[in-house]
Amino acid sequence: MRVKELLLGAAYYNEYMPYERIDEDMELMKKLGFNTIRIGESAWSTWEPKDGEFDFTKLTDVLEAACRHDIKVIVGTPTYAVPSWLVRKYPDIMSVTKDGQLLYGHRQYFDITNEHYRYHCNRIIRKMMQAVCDYDCIIGYQIDNETRAADAAGPDVQALFVEKMRAEYPDIDDFNKEFGLDYWSNRIADWDDFPDVRGTINASIDAAYKRFLRYCIADFIAWQADIVREYAKEGQFVTHNFDFDWRDSSYGLQPLVNQRAAGRALDVAGADIYHPSQSELTGAEIALCSDIARSIKQDNYLLLETQSQGRFKWLPFPGQLRMQGYAQLAGGANSIMYWNWHSIHNSAESFWKGILSHDLEPGFTYHELSGFTSELEGISRNLINLRKENKAAILLDHVALTALDEFKEDLQLDYNEVVRRIYNACYEMNLECDIIYKSAKLDKYSLVILPAFYSVDDMLVGKFRSYIENGGHIIATFKSFFADRELKIFADPAPHGMTDVFDIRYDMFTKPGTATVMFDDGQEFPIDNHIELLELNGDAVPWARYSHPYWNKYAAVTHSKYGNGSATYIGCECSKAAMSKTIRRVAMIAGIRLPRYQFPLIRRSGVNDLDQRLEYIFNYSMENNTIICEHNCKNLIGGEKYEMGAGITLHPWDVAILIDDED
Amino acid sequence: MRVKELLLGAAYYNEYMPYERIDEDMELMKKLGFNTIRIGESAWSTWEPKDGEFDFTKLTDVLEAACRHDIKVIVGTPTYAVPSWLVRKYPDIMSVTKDGQLLYGHRQYFDITNEHYRYHCNRIIRKMMQAVCDYDCIIGYQIDNETRAADAAGPDVQALFVEKMRAEYPDIDDFNKEFGLDYWSNRIADWDDFPDVRGTINASIDAAYKRFLRYCIADFIAWQADIVREYAKEGQFVTHNFDFDWRDSSYGLQPLVNQRAAGRALDVAGADIYHPSQSELTGAEIALCSDIARSIKQDNYLLLETQSQGRFKWLPFPGQLRMQGYAQLAGGANSIMYWNWHSIHNSAESFWKGILSHDLEPGFTYHELSGFTSELEGISRNLINLRKENKAAILLDHVALTALDEFKEDLQLDYNEVVRRIYNACYEMNLECDIIYKSAKLDKYSLVILPAFYSVDDMLVGKFRSYIENGGHIIATFKSFFADRELKIFADPAPHGMTDVFDIRYDMFTKPGTATVMFDDGQEFPIDNHIELLELNGDAVPWARYSHPYWNKYAAVTHSKYGNGSATYIGCECSKAAMSKTIRRVAMIAGIRLPRYQFPLIRRSGVNDLDQRLEYIFNYSMENNTIICEHNCKNLIGGEKYEMGAGITLHPWDVAILIDDED
Amino acid sequence: MRVKELLLGAAYYNEYMPYERIDEDMELMKKLGFNTIRIGESAWSTWEPKDGEFDFTKLTDVLEAACRHDIKVIVGTPTYAVPSWLVRKYPDIMSVTKDGQLLYGHRQYFDITNEHYRYHCNRIIRKMMQAVCDYDCIIGYQIDNETRAADAAGPDVQALFVEKMRAEYPDIDDFNKEFGLDYWSNRIADWDDFPDVRGTINASIDAAYKRFLRYCIADFIAWQADIVREYAKEGQFVTHNFDFDWRDSSYGLQPLVNQRAAGRALDVAGADIYHPSQSELTGAEIALCSDIARSIKQDNYLLLETQSQGRFKWLPFPGQLRMQGYAQLAGGANSIMYWNWHSIHNSAESFWKGILSHDLEPGFTYHELSGFTSELEGISRNLINLRKENKAAILLDHVALTALDEFKEDLQLDYNEVVRRIYNACYEMNLECDIIYKSAKLDKYSLVILPAFYSVDDMLVGKFRSYIENGGHIIATFKSFFADRELKIFADPAPHGMTDVFDIRYDMFTKPGTATVMFDDGQEFPIDNHIELLELNGDAVPWARYSHPYWNKYAAVTHSKYGNGSATYIGCECSKAAMSKTIRRVAMIAGIRLPRYQFPLIRRSGVNDLDQRLEYIFNYSMENNTIICEHNCKNLIGGEKYEMGAGITLHPWDVAILIDDED
Repeated sequence: MRVKELLLGAAYYNEYMPYERIDEDMELMKKLGFNTIRIGESAWSTWEPKDGEFDFTKLTDVLEAACRHDIKVIVGTPTYAVPSWLVRKYPDIMSVTKDGQLLYGHRQYFDITNEHYRYHCNRIIRKMMQAVCDYDCIIGYQIDNETRAADAAGPDVQALFVEKMRAEYPDIDDFNKEFGLDYWSNRIADWDDFPDVRGTINASIDAAYKRFLRYCIADFIAWQADIVREYAKEGQFVTHNFDFDWRDSSYGLQPLVNQRAAGRALDVAGADIYHPSQSELTGAEIALCSDIARSIKQDNYLLLETQSQGRFKWLPFPGQLRMQGYAQLAGGANSIMYWNWHSIHNSAESFWKGILSHDLEPGFTYHELSGFTSELEGISRNLINLRKENKAAILLDHVALTALDEFKEDLQLDYNEVVRRIYNACYEMNLECDIIYKSAKLDKYSLVILPAFYSVDDMLVGKFRSYIENGGHIIATFKSFFADRELKIFADPAPHGMTDVFDIRYDMFTKPGTATVMFDDGQEFPIDNHIELLELNGDAVPWARYSHPYWNKYAAVTHSKYGNGSATYIGCECSKAAMSKTIRRVAMIAGIRLPRYQFPLIRRSGVNDLDQRLEYIFNYSMENNTIICEHNCKNLIGGEKYEMGAGITLHPWDVAILIDDED
Repeated sequence: MRVKELLLGAAYYNEYMPYERIDEDMELMKKLGFNTIRIGESAWSTWEPKDGEFDFTKLTDVLEAACRHDIKVIVGTPTYAVPSWLVRKYPDIMSVTKDGQLLYGHRQYFDITNEHYRYHCNRIIRKMMQAVCDYDCIIGYQIDNETRAADAAGPDVQALFVEKMRAEYPDIDDFNKEFGLDYWSNRIADWDDFPDVRGTINASIDAAYKRFLRYCIADFIAWQADIVREYAKEGQFVTHNFDFDWRDSSYGLQPLVNQRAAGRALDVAGADIYHPSQSELTGAEIALCSDIARSIKQDNYLLLETQSQGRFKWLPFPGQLRMQGYAQLAGGANSIMYWNWHSIHNSAESFWKGILSHDLEPGFTYHELSGFTSELEGISRNLINLRKENKAAILLDHVALTALDEFKEDLQLDYNEVVRRIYNACYEMNLECDIIYKSAKLDKYSLVILPAFYSVDDMLVGKFRSYIENGGHIIATFKSFFADRELKIFADPAPHGMTDVFDIRYDMFTKPGTATVMFDDGQEFPIDNHIELLELNGDAVPWARYSHPYWNKYAAVTHSKYGNGSATYIGCECSKAAMSKTIRRVAMIAGIRLPRYQFPLIRRSGVNDLDQRLEYIFNYSMENNTIICEHNCKNLIGGEKYEMGAGITLHPWDVAILIDDED
Repeated sequence: MRVKELLLGAAYYNEYMPYERIDEDMELMKKLGFNTIRIGESAWSTWEPKDGEFDFTKLTDVLEAACRHDIKVIVGTPTYAVPSWLVRKYPDIMSVTKDGQLLYGHRQYFDITNEHYRYHCNRIIRKMMQAVCDYDCIIGYQIDNETRAADAAGPDVQALFVEKMRAEYPDIDDFNKEFGLDYWSNRIADWDDFPDVRGTINASIDAAYKRFLRYCIADFIAWQADIVREYAKEGQFVTHNFDFDWRDSSYGLQPLVNQRAAGRALDVAGADIYHPSQSELTGAEIALCSDIARSIKQDNYLLLETQSQGRFKWLPFPGQLRMQGYAQLAGGANSIMYWNWHSIHNSAESFWKGILSHDLEPGFTYHELSGFTSELEGISRNLINLRKENKAAILLDHVALTALDEFKEDLQLDYNEVVRRIYNACYEMNLECDIIYKSAKLDKYSLVILPAFYSVDDMLVGKFRSYIENGGHIIATFKSFFADRELKIFADPAPHGMTDVFDIRYDMFTKPGTATVMFDDGQEFPIDNHIELLELNGDAVPWARYSHPYWNKYAAVTHSKYGNGSATYIGCECSKAAMSKTIRRVAMIAGIRLPRYQFPLIRRSGVNDLDQRLEYIFNYSMENNTIICEHNCKNLIGGEKYEMGAGITLHPWDVAILIDDED
């Protein structure tokens, strides 16, 4: 979705305020250059204090003020946290998980397929829409928030799952065969005997259930979107706030949500991206999560939440807040919405601070932001609707993620860690990648990287074969082309269907022990957790072998020409540096040119509405660092011009936005 | 409560003995100089083997023997461990916690508010009192033992809680506002909608529930005390055995019990103090817990339990048992009661050894004790009823403790650790402190220290302001004056109500990262977990700043004169040494004189019944150490005299008790 | 049970195969020299897909093929994993444990005493036996598999326990006394008041319950064996597959099963032994578990499972597979059965690989095996029915194991770790030991070692006294002779009943702190976790004392002559090296001669059917190592001869089997 101006603002919770101050807040926002707020999604019990009694005053107060102050509003449906009266009335709403039934209190702890929950969702959404839909300041609606299926495994939701499996496998024998249920007496002759999935030891069933829960989420979002659209006005968008795998901050692919599937019902994807800060600010999390957010609808997206002060440990160093903002835009965001306007005085997120501290006065952070937004004012129109034109892509896959998770105790591999090792290698060498999925068209890419691409089917294998034949280059890692859709390991040589393409095969894999990976130029790198003992078939070139008393006759990294392209295989969980070395080599073969500088100097680029190519240059460092201009250019920030060959020195945490200088 | 002689003895469990040996034991005790035993509190199922059938033989056997052997007895009500028949009859007695209903077996796992439990408590107490109350050897009664509320959260006890909240907040809107319940849809419009507290994510509700459970304990103890007093004779005291925050030994303020509130129903406070031993024996745990025990009724207390051999890993080095005994007396104990007489041959505490090992013969420990008690014989009358006359105090607070606990995941601060950092700094520099609470009169103190004094109200703020105005000196640390009684963070500048007194304000705080604290004399100290970025208002003197690339413009420790006193603020969790440096500096300003020696040489002092000032000097070390006499004095132990300026050399684990020599 | 030929083969799961390939597999097996498969035990739901509907086709297909290919078969009863329809019909079959009722899915998660389970067990066993018993290729039956009691503690099984206790203690007062139930009000006056054992804090009760569960397992196996024997033909054996304490591989005494008791119903013991590999392959696990397996029926046993590739991290280095095979035979195995033939494509054990990888083609492992089996062909008849003739024994005991477990939090001692410290010391010095139990005849041994022999009774004490009096030598460690059968600690001096034999006593024990153990020759060794402060009675010789500022007057290791033998006591958990030093010294006194070489050169010996003494010599190392022949000998493998004094050099992971050369 294209925007006409950058949306700048924050989540605003009038209902949390210790005292009435809407107008004061809006004035402070306007001074800051904010033009948008996001409201309403967290307070169902305020909008419907008792069953069937509605009171939207605190919401419409804000809408009226927003209209007055010329501030745009995104209104969220309040269904991700339910009122206690609803759970009191229908206790079975609370999710039943492996650990028993969850208690009321936390958000997202209920079963989104529950019929009573759905009934009351439908009613509160309609009532809310009726209450707000006539306010002109509304520009869009957010469906629910970071929707979860809450590991729901009560009888009703399990029955839905069994029904779904039954539809996929009309012949129960096929099901038993595909899922390997003879093992440990798990075979069923009757669907009624399908046991409680919470106890299963069958990785295929567990993975299928996780897939089913992701399906439930997409279904729920689509269902809500339909309701909201009955009331939404022309030009108002429908979005959702997606989040990411969380490891103390946004980390990688969200395991619990199939965002492409869920995104189909939306006009524009929304996302919240939180990241480490202070000396741990590298921009990698912002970049990766931006790239994922863009992949949802293969389009620009709305950054619906990011940190200002954030968790108090993230308090940004001077200058970082501005840099973080630009980094978000460099990833294709069409908005920067902070979470949240003010710090909260009670409950669970009091130390996850807003733009205003608890004293509700403009402080250091407010003033830092103010500097950034003033600077943006003149240039933001050049930054929105950024089109990325990457020649490389990384393919992510939920089935692969789940597979490594199912076998975590054995393999000790973590999908998102593998992905991050590769993504960060690319990020740090300034090789910008799109994030793609199995269904992607590959033609536009010179290079496609497949981290631990565990699960494939024959159609996919065919697609990759013809991509390479037609001149494409791929890099796949260990544990790729290994099992089918239901995680049944292939009963033929690995990598399945690709032994001639990679020109290798292997049937032995183990922990590395003392093994290291030794490249043909003598460079040696450490390995974590996994090695596959690769045997060369025909003409594959062993770029690296294992250095080990017994495994040294096996290859570790191989490269094979196939058709007009090439296929490179990384057989071990080697260090980021070894990944990097391999990727650089393939990138060169694939004709991708990389800049001379690398992290902490980061380049992120794209093309704007004026068809200008923008190059954001970031200095993620406490030191000054200098790049050499590769062409005549101009810094959009400040307007300084540089001739080809000149040095541009970036101060700590500084950023430049370079465009071709056509003068 | 004043005593006429030191009570020396042990807990005695006739009912646990593998064979009959009461007289043999009593003779061994008499030889040891013991004059008191504590009995009866652990064996309800022995006293009432079946519902309504009573048999106190094993108890009265002991009482008869005690009378015969002229041994005093403290009898405990046996209600902290219930018989299995009671739970069989009323299963709902067992506490329902976050982890489900507890199973029978462990002591203190039931709900003390349960009506069936109360009914049977009442009956067994009365039956027991009737059985024992005519024995002249009884000097007092102990109510229950280390009473717990067992995290009870079954429907009945939760209903009591809601009732209590409702009484405190007649207007439910005030309640919603104060507790911030709009957040995540937790608002309630009807008290009947109050959800199960076990699921709450609201820190204020969780903290209020913990406060409520502390109230239940005080209420229960008062209820029992009333019953016992119906039978107790004139001159017999009523006490309770309080314990402390437990971290492998007694560590700090007991989070689960409000001991002052519970102590109101008692004649004298009792306590059990257990501590590390061998090379970890520092006396700090004994000192702090003594100071807390004394604070309960602002009076001397009974040490009802301490270790002889104790947990087998505590087996004292030769000499330590004696030293530990004196350390207990130096804290104001009027008794030394060991737990327990004999080691136990079955069940859970077999490796928590008594004075006698499992062989039930006098061994090394018995003989060590015997040396100590012989030495005590001549001097114990000079040691009892010790009045401490400290000029400094440390203020402890349950609400602050709970607050840090609620936000532990964010803040990673632990209240008792903060307290111990400060207490140990004082202890090691020989600055003796009283332990006080919010309600304390401050006038008698020159210096009051407030560790992480998170929660205040306006009356308290006023009290501190006028204390300082009138010449008092306070030291407060980070996270003081931050939130109100229900943990609602103040919506004005921090520290709340005190920005002019401390002459600082701050709204930013974060993890220290590489920051250290740099004092004005160039000394630098490390910081854990938390820094507040202090801005100076007017005349505050920054005693220390942060050493950090970005935070170096903020103060870390500030000192401000206010009225006739001063206010010092420590804005970070700096090391004990930095705390120490700050406290020393304020102590000097406050006119408190400290001795030249410090840990491992420890001084603990007070005034005895003869109005003699006693100075216990301890050498917590495996080396000899020497102090220089500051006046002519005499060692009560042994009687040796020393002139001012002379050296007194203390052997490893040795102690002297100095009094002014008036000759 | 004697065998006529070595059984060589694998577990074979036709029902798990992704496609039909029985004949192909059998041909591959025959080429490999395999003569036996083990089938049927894991797939009840395949044999009985619906309640009362039976289909053994996939089983009989294998039997028919086996007969055709002249392969022997061991058929297992399929009762260790139940069909889901059975649990659906009788949900109470699933075990109720401390953590609640277990869910269906995992094997062995049900209550083996449950009447419905037993009913259906009985039926499926009979149906299966009827289906298979006429196939001539069957040589034996396996009862269940690694039977477990699943910590079952539902009402029915607890009632059985109470009944059993009641039978053992007709007078409930004796029971209360012996178990120390007055403690914490646990006394019961009526068996109906016996509380849920899951909540008990009484170590004696908990230990008795664990003993009861071991009894249930033995009872269950005997019950099944009776059923199977109704159908088995003459000459067919009945066995069970026992496993071991599992710590990432087979580690020590199985805590959950009394294998001797369970073994009484069997013709021959079976076992599965899994062990570390690659650079962690030491042979110690194979040796210990072989020794235990042999102890079950004091006879040779069947190795029913061991790894080929195994868990993928165990992938053997070249040569190791052969060496492991010989190591198993050197322990007295009469079979080598790999688990399993093929790697599994679904579910939980996909990365626990078989002889064939997932591609189902003969790979490196197949070919390694093939080399080993060819070599075996000519010599295996000399290797079977090996009789060990050890002069030393280590006594293991479940009550001691449970005791240390009950008091783990206090003592931080782990029984199997103590055992392994001693066993490995013996193993590495090439002192071969039998594993024996309390009931063993001691006369044949010169030396008996008692690791942490916690629990004894007076008969046992008498047995050891007379063993020593008659010339036997014992070594006992700390925490031996400490408590009775129900873990009631003795109320007389420790070591109970043996103070005159060891000529020591002690009543103090503690953590070592800085203490080390200092031998009389000045050698010093570290200590973990536990020291007992030993006092010498009469003539005991203190082989070692503690090096410590306070404990240095106590002995750490003592040696005492008694009668015609001696008694050595190790009072602390000293390092393996200190154990080793002590054991060597006693072995010399006991007249046991040890070879000059030690680990990594390992000798394992015995006498074969031809009354030849075999000496297996293993080189557990990546280096060549050489031994000097002590007599003229011949290597059974290859036939090379060596004269006394000649060197035999073993290559990495190589093995020689030496016999006297009579030429």
